[in-house]
Amino acid sequence: MATEREQQLMRRALELAANGPTRGVNPQVGCVIVSPDGTVLGEGWHRGAGSAHAEVDALSHVGSDAACGATAIVTLEPCNHTGRTGPCVDALLDAGIARVVYAVDDPGTVSSGGGARLAANGVSVESGVLREQAEAFLGDWLTTARSGRPLVMLKWASSLDGRTAAADGSSKWITGDQARADVHRLRTRSDAIAVGTGTVLADNPSLTARTATGELYEDQPVPVVFGIRDLPVDALLRQHPHPHVRLDGRDLESDLRTLRERGIRSLFVEGGPTLASAFVRAGLVDEFVVYLAPAVLGGDHLALTDLGVGNIAEAHRLSLIDVARVGDDVRLTLRPKGRN
Amino acid sequence: MATEREQQLMRRALELAANGPTRGVNPQVGCVIVSPDGTVLGEGWHRGAGSAHAEVDALSHVGSDAACGATAIVTLEPCNHTGRTGPCVDALLDAGIARVVYAVDDPGTVSSGGGARLAANGVSVESGVLREQAEAFLGDWLTTARSGRPLVMLKWASSLDGRTAAADGSSKWITGDQARADVHRLRTRSDAIAVGTGTVLADNPSLTARTATGELYEDQPVPVVFGIRDLPVDALLRQHPHPHVRLDGRDLESDLRTLRERGIRSLFVEGGPTLASAFVRAGLVDEFVVYLAPAVLGGDHLALTDLGVGNIAEAHRLSLIDVARVGDDVRLTLRPKGRN
Ligand SMILES: NC(=O)c1ccc[n+]([C@@H]2O[C@H](COP(=O)([O-])OP(=O)(O)OC[C@H]3O[C@@H](n4cnc5c(N)ncnc54)[C@H](OP(=O)(O)O)[C@@H]3O)[C@@H](O)[C@H]2O)c1
Ligand SMILES: NC(=O)c1ccc[n+]([C@@H]2O[C@H](COP(=O)([O-])OP(=O)(O)OC[C@H]3O[C@@H](n4cnc5c(N)ncnc54)[C@H](OP(=O)(O)O)[C@@H]3O)[C@@H](O)[C@H]2O)c1
Repeated sequence: MATEREQQLMRRALELAANGPTRGVNPQVGCVIVSPDGTVLGEGWHRGAGSAHAEVDALSHVGSDAACGATAIVTLEPCNHTGRTGPCVDALLDAGIARVVYAVDDPGTVSSGGGARLAANGVSVESGVLREQAEAFLGDWLTTARSGRPLVMLKWASSLDGRTAAADGSSKWITGDQARADVHRLRTRSDAIAVGTGTVLADNPSLTARTATGELYEDQPVPVVFGIRDLPVDALLRQHPHPHVRLDGRDLESDLRTLRERGIRSLFVEGGPTLASAFVRAGLVDEFVVYLAPAVLGGDHLALTDLGVGNIAEAHRLSLIDVARVGDDVRLTLRPKGRN
Repeated sequence: MATEREQQLMRRALELAANGPTRGVNPQVGCVIVSPDGTVLGEGWHRGAGSAHAEVDALSHVGSDAACGATAIVTLEPCNHTGRTGPCVDALLDAGIARVVYAVDDPGTVSSGGGARLAANGVSVESGVLREQAEAFLGDWLTTARSGRPLVMLKWASSLDGRTAAADGSSKWITGDQARADVHRLRTRSDAIAVGTGTVLADNPSLTARTATGELYEDQPVPVVFGIRDLPVDALLRQHPHPHVRLDGRDLESDLRTLRERGIRSLFVEGGPTLASAFVRAGLVDEFVVYLAPAVLGGDHLALTDLGVGNIAEAHRLSLIDVARVGDDVRLTLRPKGRN
C-alpha cells in the first residue's frame, strides 16, 4: 500500500511529467525523490528521446548519499535495459534507494522487469498507484510499446472528391506550397517514412524531409519501401542520407514489429493507394492526416482503393482530432474511433 | 453627370441597401428621395423577395405630392415589370419624380428597360454612378440575373475518401444527425431541390425540408427531377406539398433557364453522382457544400464519377469559403475559383 503522502507525491510526479514533450512518440514521465520523513529531496522529468529518464534527472538534483534510504515516486516503472541511456534500475540501486512507488508497468518486452529486479535487490516496491491518470501521460508511447510496433500515421493529399491525380496520372500540384511544407515538417518528426514499390516506380521520390528552400532537414526519416519488386539502381531514394529498409509487405503487422525492433517508433505512410488501403484494411493506422485541395477531379485515381467494407456498419469510423486550413487547403487529422 | 450631392446620396443609398437580407438570392438595394434643393425626403431599402422594392419603400415615407419634382437616387435600375410587386417605374412616374440616378443596370430580360421608359416619359436619367460598389451588394442575385438561371448549390455527403455508400449500397447514416439537420435547413432556404431519376428510383426520397422532429418546414423547396425514366406512381415525392417539376436533363443550361422562368432563383442539387457530375462538368455549380464524415469506406460508390478532367491543369479549381464542424462531421463550402 502506498501512504497518503506517497499518493500526494505521485500527483506531484504527474505534474512534473507534464513538463515533458507532448510531440512525437515520447512518454511523459515524472519522478520525486523523498526522504523517509517525507521531505522532497529532488524532482525530475523526462525531456524526450535520448535525454535522461525522470529517475536519473531527479537523482541528479539530490546531494550525494542523500538519496540513501529514500523513496522514489515515479509515474512509469523504472526501466531495466540500456537504451540510449543506462538502466534506471541501476541508478536507483547505486543511489541506495530503499523504496520505489510507481504508477504504470513498463510495457516494453526488453525494458520491463525493473520492478522485479528492484525487489530482488531488497527494495520495497509498490506499483499501480494512480495508474489511470499516469497512462494518459504516456499516450502514443504506451500504445505502441504495448503493441510492439511503431505509431503509424497515414497521410494522403487529394481533391475534395478523394482523387489524387487526373485521368493521365498528373498530380503536380493538387495541394499548395504550404500543405507540402507541412508534410515535410511531419516527415522530419517521424522516425521513418514508407511507400509501396508502386510509388517508387511511378514517382521516383527522394523520401527526404526538406525545407521550403529545398534544404534537407537535420532529422531525416528512414526511408522504408514495402513490396517485392526490384527498385531501379538509380532510384533517388538510394541517395537518401539513411540507407532504405525493404520489407515485403505481405504481413504488415510483422513488418511493423521488425521496424520497431530497429528502433523506429513512428512511421509516416505516404502511399500510394494500394499500400495505404492495405494499412487501413489491416486496422494498423493510428492517425490519418488528410490534405484536401479545393478542387474536384473525378475519375479513377483515388487516394484509397478497396477497404473490404461490405456494408455501412463495417465502415472504418474515425474521430476528428483537428481541422486546420493550411494555405488554400484543409488538413484533417483523425484517429480510429475509441483510440485517442 | 451626377452632382456631388447625388454621389454623396448614392453612398447613403448603399448604406441603406446593406440593411437588406444577405441570405438567399436577394438583391440588396437602397434608395434616397431628395428634393431639388438637396433635402432628403425619404429613404428606403429592399427587405427581400416579395416585399416592397427600395424605391416604393422610400416613396412611402414621403408625404403625398412632396415627391413631385424630386430626384430618386437608387442603387439598382428601377424595374419595369410586374413581379410579386408592381413595376417601380410606374410608382416613380405616378409620384412625379423628375430625375432618377442609379448605379447598376437591371440585368433581367423582363425587368430591364426601366431607365429607358423613365427617359421616354420625360424623366432625367443618369446611370452607372458608383456602379462597382453597388454590384458588390447584388452578389448572387446579379450573377444569376445576368446568366438567366438559378444559383446552383451542389451538396454531397461522403466519407473522408469521397465515398457515399459501402459496397452493398448501404449509406444510412454516413454523416450524423446534425449534418442532416443542416442539410434540411439549406433545403428550406432554397427555392427548389433537385435529384436525378437514379436517386428517385434507388432511394424514393420525399424531397421535403424537415425539422429534427420530422415536421415539415413552412418553406418547402419545389422538387425537381432530372431525367427521362418514368417515376413510380407511389414515389414519395408525389406527396410533396408542391407538385414536382420534370426536366429531361439533356441540356442542363436550358433546363436551368426554364426553372428561372418559373421563378426559381436557387436550386439545391442533392445528387446522385451522375447528375452531380453532369452539373460540375457543365460548369453550372455556383456553390459546393460538402459534408465529410469521419470515416473511410473505399470501394466504388463515389460522390462524383467522371468530370472529363484529362490532366491536372484542367482540374475544377475552387475557393474555400467556409470550413465548419457540424456535429462529428465537417462541412466545406466552396465556390468556383474567381467567383465569390
Ligand atoms: N496523392 C498522394 O498522396 C500520393 C502518394 C503516393 C503515391 N501516389 C500515387 O500512387 C501511384 C502508385 O500507386 P500504387 O497503388 O501502385 O502504389 P503503392 O501503394 O506505393 O505500391 C503498391 C505496391 O506495394 C506493394 N505492397 C507492399 N505491401 C503491400 C500490401 N500489404 N498490399 C498490397 N501491396 C503491397 C505491392 O508491390 P510488389 O508487387 O512490389 O510487392 C503493390 O503493388 C502513383 O501514381 C503515385 O503518384 C499518390
Ligand atoms: N450521399 C449522397 O449525398 C447521395 C445523394 C443522392 C444520391 N445518392 C445515391 O446515388 C445513387 C444513385 O446514383 P445515380 O448516379 O444513378 O443517380 P442520379 O444522379 O440521381 O440519377 C442519374 C440519372 O439522372 C438522369 N439524368 C438527368 N440529367 C442528366 C445528365 N445531364 N447527365 C446524366 N444523367 C442525367 C439520367 O437518368 P434518365 O435515363 O432517367 O434520364 C441518369 O441516369 C443512389 O444509390 C443514391 O443513394 C447519394
